[in-house]
Amino acid sequence: MTQNVYIIEGEKLFIDAPHSSVQEVYLTAGFLQHASTVVNLSHKLSMQQYEVVSDDVFRRMSDTMTPQGILCVVKREIVPLEIILEGVKGEQAWKKGNQFQSESSAPLWLLLEDINDPGNLGTIIRTAEAIGIDAIILSANCVDVYNPKTVRAAMGSIFRTRISTTTSITSVIDILRENEVTVYAAKPSGVTPCYDCDFWAATAFLIGSESHGLREDSCRNTIDTVIPMKGEADSINVAVASSILLYEAARQRGGNKR
Amino acid sequence: MTQNVYIIEGEKLFIDAPHSSVQEVYLTAGFLQHASTVVNLSHKLSMQQYEVVSDDVFRRMSDTMTPQGILCVVKREIVPLEIILEGVKGEQAWKKGNQFQSESSAPLWLLLEDINDPGNLGTIIRTAEAIGIDAIILSANCVDVYNPKTVRAAMGSIFRTRISTTTSITSVIDILRENEVTVYAAKPSGVTPCYDCDFWAATAFLIGSESHGLREDSCRNTIDTVIPMKGEADSINVAVASSILLYEAARQRGGNKR
Repeated sequence: MTQNVYIIEGEKLFIDAPHSSVQEVYLTAGFLQHASTVVNLSHKLSMQQYEVVSDDVFRRMSDTMTPQGILCVVKREIVPLEIILEGVKGEQAWKKGNQFQSESSAPLWLLLEDINDPGNLGTIIRTAEAIGIDAIILSANCVDVYNPKTVRAAMGSIFRTRISTTTSITSVIDILRENEVTVYAAKPSGVTPCYDCDFWAATAFLIGSESHGLREDSCRNTIDTVIPMKGEADSINVAVASSILLYEAARQRGGNKR
Repeated sequence: MTQNVYIIEGEKLFIDAPHSSVQEVYLTAGFLQHASTVVNLSHKLSMQQYEVVSDDVFRRMSDTMTPQGILCVVKREIVPLEIILEGVKGEQAWKKGNQFQSESSAPLWLLLEDINDPGNLGTIIRTAEAIGIDAIILSANCVDVYNPKTVRAAMGSIFRTRISTTTSITSVIDILRENEVTVYAAKPSGVTPCYDCDFWAATAFLIGSESHGLREDSCRNTIDTVIPMKGEADSINVAVASSILLYEAARQRGGNKR
């Protein structure tokens, strides 16, 4: 059974973690001394209960080769799917006058199917925050979003991104489509380059696994799009592919509409 | 001292590796049997001397947790820097009438300074092939391009991309500039979004390390560019950043010139 907490390590993640989510903090005497010289770190520690442990104990607790001397137990903050879906329902402003704005405020979503590399998932979350994603939905077979490698690769973005999970990507797609969100499936076999798709209106990108791509079943009601490739390359890294689509949407929406 | 060979593992890399570069092949009896059922694999093996080793010996040779049963010793193919630089000198076609074409054929280069994660480097090489890069130049402090993790992340692109190294990025930049190549330094502190830069003419992107960014000294004669970011995100993964710049250049050059 999945516990409802996870572990973060290191100074930067501790500073980024929301105070309300941090349940336990363990640190070394060396870290405490270091912290006293860093203003925002000592400020954050002053609001926090913590336990000082020996270097030896810390090394055994740590998941990393070069422990930084601080480790926290943090509450998982998976957003319930229904709350996320609520955000695209009803008479939203973006359904009315979005086309008259200079920047699009329409929802932008990411649907991830069966991503299995934790580093890739973390990198995707990090980019998704940088373009201002509204929500990320993971299929039940994706690697755990709170895998230590995912958390490391996502950096602080793990705390600031709305993430949910679903046992049925196709149901989520159906609900999105009923609410005027266009779902684009990223496929190497797709015909329309992403640069020829219009991501100005409400958009969701559906991205498949590293080794198997998307399940055919999931793409029944989606529009194919492809990231153009040259040479003998027949695929690119899944985190790179996700990032290129997200940034292309951001480019089109940022007052640069074609 | 660096040897002038490296190791590749797995069926896909073996198929992609140029015949002339493969020096030794080791495989298991199980792999040999599997290979007899795969047309392009058995064809490639038929042209190749190989040695069958026991599963136990193979496991000890292998760098991976789940060995695929084939491992090759391959010759390094770093291209001498002067040969790569030759490509931008003199009266090239792209210097004359490039602006009248519907697609740009001007050189596109990547200069990588002190990248230290092998997976990131491999991912960058993989994307670079996909957009049709002309050359990648690595600073001497970059992780080894033939690190097993780099090779895995680059997939077959490692064999098909012109890669060189330099002890002086600034000298390379000087030579590029003398030859009408504009060098853009990717900087979170940059003012001009990459979408407002013109990558149609000969372009090189200068990308810095994961933790420290670019050395100030390297950016003396470059033009800053920035990948726009929202939220509290202050950076994105270096392989993602490289990929976004490369794809933005490819988009502008692919008959989509603004």
